[in-house]
Amino acid sequence: MRIGVLTSGGDCPGLNAVIRSVVHRAVVDHGDEVIGFHDGWRGLLECDYRPLDLDAVSGILARGGTILGSSRVQPAHLRGGVETARGHVADLGLDAIIPIGGEGTLKAAHLLSEAGLPIVGVPKTIDNDIASTDVTFGFDTAVGVATEALDRLKTTAESHQRVLIVEVMGRHTGWIALHSGMAAGAHAIVVPERPFDIGELTELVGKRFSAGKKFAIVVVAEGAKPREGSMEFNVGKKDQYGHERFAGVANQLAIELEERLGKEARPVILGHVQRGGTPTAYDRVLATRFGWHAVEAAHHGRFGMLTALRGTDIVMVPLADAVAELKTVPAQRYEEAECVL
Amino acid sequence: MRIGVLTSGGDCPGLNAVIRSVVHRAVVDHGDEVIGFHDGWRGLLECDYRPLDLDAVSGILARGGTILGSSRVQPAHLRGGVETARGHVADLGLDAIIPIGGEGTLKAAHLLSEAGLPIVGVPKTIDNDIASTDVTFGFDTAVGVATEALDRLKTTAESHQRVLIVEVMGRHTGWIALHSGMAAGAHAIVVPERPFDIGELTELVGKRFSAGKKFAIVVVAEGAKPREGSMEFNVGKKDQYGHERFAGVANQLAIELEERLGKEARPVILGHVQRGGTPTAYDRVLATRFGWHAVEAAHHGRFGMLTALRGTDIVMVPLADAVAELKTVPAQRYEEAECVL
Amino acid sequence: MRIGVLTSGGDCPGLNAVIRSVVHRAVVDHGDEVIGFHDGWRGLLECDYRPLDLDAVSGILARGGTILGSSRVQPAHLRGGVETARGHVADLGLDAIIPIGGEGTLKAAHLLSEAGLPIVGVPKTIDNDIASTDVTFGFDTAVGVATEALDRLKTTAESHQRVLIVEVMGRHTGWIALHSGMAAGAHAIVVPERPFDIGELTELVGKRFSAGKKFAIVVVAEGAKPREGSMEFNVGKKDQYGHERFAGVANQLAIELEERLGKEARPVILGHVQRGGTPTAYDRVLATRFGWHAVEAAHHGRFGMLTALRGTDIVMVPLADAVAELKTVPAQRYEEAECVL
Amino acid sequence: MRIGVLTSGGDCPGLNAVIRSVVHRAVVDHGDEVIGFHDGWRGLLECDYRPLDLDAVSGILARGGTILGSSRVQPAHLRGGVETARGHVADLGLDAIIPIGGEGTLKAAHLLSEAGLPIVGVPKTIDNDIASTDVTFGFDTAVGVATEALDRLKTTAESHQRVLIVEVMGRHTGWIALHSGMAAGAHAIVVPERPFDIGELTELVGKRFSAGKKFAIVVVAEGAKPREGSMEFNVGKKDQYGHERFAGVANQLAIELEERLGKEARPVILGHVQRGGTPTAYDRVLATRFGWHAVEAAHHGRFGMLTALRGTDIVMVPLADAVAELKTVPAQRYEEAECVL
Repeated sequence: MRIGVLTSGGDCPGLNAVIRSVVHRAVVDHGDEVIGFHDGWRGLLECDYRPLDLDAVSGILARGGTILGSSRVQPAHLRGGVETARGHVADLGLDAIIPIGGEGTLKAAHLLSEAGLPIVGVPKTIDNDIASTDVTFGFDTAVGVATEALDRLKTTAESHQRVLIVEVMGRHTGWIALHSGMAAGAHAIVVPERPFDIGELTELVGKRFSAGKKFAIVVVAEGAKPREGSMEFNVGKKDQYGHERFAGVANQLAIELEERLGKEARPVILGHVQRGGTPTAYDRVLATRFGWHAVEAAHHGRFGMLTALRGTDIVMVPLADAVAELKTVPAQRYEEAECVL
Repeated sequence: MRIGVLTSGGDCPGLNAVIRSVVHRAVVDHGDEVIGFHDGWRGLLECDYRPLDLDAVSGILARGGTILGSSRVQPAHLRGGVETARGHVADLGLDAIIPIGGEGTLKAAHLLSEAGLPIVGVPKTIDNDIASTDVTFGFDTAVGVATEALDRLKTTAESHQRVLIVEVMGRHTGWIALHSGMAAGAHAIVVPERPFDIGELTELVGKRFSAGKKFAIVVVAEGAKPREGSMEFNVGKKDQYGHERFAGVANQLAIELEERLGKEARPVILGHVQRGGTPTAYDRVLATRFGWHAVEAAHHGRFGMLTALRGTDIVMVPLADAVAELKTVPAQRYEEAECVL
Repeated sequence: MRIGVLTSGGDCPGLNAVIRSVVHRAVVDHGDEVIGFHDGWRGLLECDYRPLDLDAVSGILARGGTILGSSRVQPAHLRGGVETARGHVADLGLDAIIPIGGEGTLKAAHLLSEAGLPIVGVPKTIDNDIASTDVTFGFDTAVGVATEALDRLKTTAESHQRVLIVEVMGRHTGWIALHSGMAAGAHAIVVPERPFDIGELTELVGKRFSAGKKFAIVVVAEGAKPREGSMEFNVGKKDQYGHERFAGVANQLAIELEERLGKEARPVILGHVQRGGTPTAYDRVLATRFGWHAVEAAHHGRFGMLTALRGTDIVMVPLADAVAELKTVPAQRYEEAECVL
Repeated sequence: MRIGVLTSGGDCPGLNAVIRSVVHRAVVDHGDEVIGFHDGWRGLLECDYRPLDLDAVSGILARGGTILGSSRVQPAHLRGGVETARGHVADLGLDAIIPIGGEGTLKAAHLLSEAGLPIVGVPKTIDNDIASTDVTFGFDTAVGVATEALDRLKTTAESHQRVLIVEVMGRHTGWIALHSGMAAGAHAIVVPERPFDIGELTELVGKRFSAGKKFAIVVVAEGAKPREGSMEFNVGKKDQYGHERFAGVANQLAIELEERLGKEARPVILGHVQRGGTPTAYDRVLATRFGWHAVEAAHHGRFGMLTALRGTDIVMVPLADAVAELKTVPAQRYEEAECVL
């Protein structure tokens, strides 16, 4: 068999582990040939690739980033993108393409699959918001990094007698906020799935101070928003330079809580540090298993499918299901977290 | 409600997180009273305990060990143990007992439950070998510690052009060996579930050297054994001081591989470092959820049950099932690992 | 002897290690009595303290923060502060006071010492900018945290083909920027000691892209400023809410470099995570030695002095010297760093 | 200039950082040519080398091991070794050779230097026992790894109510034992510089148990020995297989303390994990500075010298001084540590 692999979208710890695993399983166990496209779909559309043998993937298991590069190019966005891709797949004699990517990438994969290309997808997102799979690789690393930061911030908040509003990743879902907040013992967790009431939040944090505690940690997902009418909120409001970047939710919450509580409140934005660097053991194992099963699926002709974790098993699910809707934090999980706030 | 909690058996990262979660859920959300028995079942049998309120569990989430202490005392081993326990439960007016422990502890819990005591178990083992639950807390931390050690050992093995035989925990099952070996890119993984043939193992490692590589890492679970007749093997053979402790599998494998390969081979025994210290975020979240659900189960009268992870859900399963047999590494998981050796 | 100890100013990993060491050396080896004032100088001024015995400092060595609390209260700022302090020292029968703190604290210590109080200072700052000592505890931890973040950010910058401007602590000096930038292999390091020319900086980063590299990491100390006339710069300019906090140097540099380079540039502000949490082994050892020697100095009547590291020795230096001027990054150190940019 | 660099002896975190720094300083700032010999002195003796340009050292700063390989070959041990080396230096037109290594390597460097070869040495040892320099790179990483292990072992020792005897590296000196023991709050530290009296050690540990504590951690350097007549001690005694490896000091201490204290005692041997893997920020900075200054020394014709840290400065010291004697733990440092045991 001849297999093409590519990584697309934002950085995510574990990408290299998938690539390595695909190459090992395909080359060693099946005698396949593997090529890697550069910079995601761009490489496929421009026929920019290189062969991947065992040496090419030696030593990359624990490394962050992706040796193939990435981009946000999507075939559907380019006129004739699908046809170009189909042509290159034929020219290169590819029997399978394994795109590793997030929601956008999987939608593109689904589109190409519908158009008849032999696609086996591997889901990738630190946000953990892809339906059909219990967990995605990269999430555990992101939660680990956020938790370690929160562990450190706790002593500082305590020493300085402050409220710290810590913004973690999660534009549409609150998984990282939920898990890192639970793991670090945050005193409030704010997620996009439950628009917050600024009054209630103030009360929750205020209760801690009334009980004699001298600090509080609030974890907030970057995509969290106030309940309508709860407070003025400037989504993407521009700063003095015309950039949107300084008006995030943590900044606005810090200002609001400081005024309402009469306690010093400071925003901390963890940012990109959550999505780079060496993956945790958990993510390396999951990524390796995904790579293995993607090759198996290709060999069994199970195209139009996606690798997914269900319990302790890796199963194949239709790409169509995976992109149908986001996996959000269910009420029950939020309730579990609340008890220890 | 009045709830007694205890921790029993060996150290395991996440014990304190369970205790804290039990207290939070019970006290804050249900208005319960919680007491903690000292040193596992010993505390129950000798009525040695202390009240646990929110202050008592403040700041313990990320701490290793157990604030309640532990022991290997088992009620069934003591004459009249069950009756004594029953008497103290009555005297103390306990409505529920939540023992947190491994296989032995859960067997004792099952016994007491059969004898009519209101027990809700929480499984605990870094070995991950308890059936009925996908994962146990402590396992992720153990794998993380072992993987970090393996990451470090790799550069040393390479610089010194050696074979390193790294012994990880796992007396009966190879879960830690499998996961840390996969995560760190070991070149051979030896687990108790598959007695090894020393000839095959030598060949596998030898192939690396033939291919021009200058070092190899073999991960071996402490409970691994050779296939019968494959090599002389001294289970628990005594050393010159009359102690069994120096004749472990890594030591014997190092000697054997060195002779057969003609390459320097050294044993490294990771030991207790895998079972202590601060838990990973994964383990803190899982432990916290177990504690929450154990309290819920008690309030719903679901005694004789055990908290368990199934996929992303916490479910209650009969204690009888949990102790029926060990969860071993299935052949499929081992095959997945092999492709990247 | 009767010794009072206090911690003052911002959080700094190693504070608890000093407190523990003071208590151990004083109580165990000298049979002294030790009391700890709450919240820095406030505790002394308001006679708010507690006795510190061995149990009180058990288990705190590796913990961030300070068990005594801290504040920014300075005796000189309060009318009659010095007299009040003197009175309480007499009332409590204290033979020595050991304040642990940064520049402001040491100035206050110097003042009280001049006024005749028996003071032995211990320097504390993550910024490493106190003259008279080679290193201060907390600095190594801060550099370690920043370096780990930079290691992670590198793969993300590479995957996203971006310039990342990473702001680290250092209001007046660039020690953290210099060391973390060198340790992580940053491509430019910007420190307060050398106002930057935005043109030169653009050129330096631009050369990387011309050479075919796809990303760059710029480490910048929070106190860095452009050379006069080099670019518009808004020190502490207010944001739309009237707060100064969003107009830091990393934000402004990101905007400027993006425009000049035509490459996506993003600011990352590491913030408080650098000053909290468990200290590195290096900082624990240094802090422990400072505590030991502070007690020795007290017993030898060496008041008005400060513990300091010189090479591998702990020496005592006059408080007057320590507060005379900041220790800045010398040109030679900056030149060493440049070669690997 | 044409410079040859080589790494010799055991693995040590920071080797790659030195190599990278030598290449950057030499190539970028001086326009030199650099070659790297493979496997230490062997590469020089067999003229086995490769050119090192900026690409060759890209991405290696944070990596453990050495890209050049290492060996324990010493020129003086080979007949005609010095002459062979001299011949190759002439043939290759080398103006300077920078060997990076430990005691043995520096002795060889001294020998070659005496024979007229243009040598600038860089000291390397995790043991920190080279005189003339305050610290060697690799030491901080080793101490960090040992401290992290000790932090974890503490909770396990406590839960299991045991004495743990933790053996760390240090064949001739106790620096790692001293620093990791102080950093982790060990209850006894045993170093080669002070032969231990088993009776006194038993008493010291026993006092903890008498005081109601339930566990103890003893850190022991691998080269520690009992005071003569204090206990039977089998240096390098063979095990049942004729190997010396199982009769280390931790094992013998565990047996002895268990018998004398009547408490369970277990040995833990940290081993190679201390000398591999990614260096700490501290070690990366020190290694980078050493590389920079080695190139400067070569350009100033300062041959027969060694880079050394003195306070915060890098200075050059004669190779002769560096190899004259080991730097041992002075009594004063040991006394400082004792107060917190």
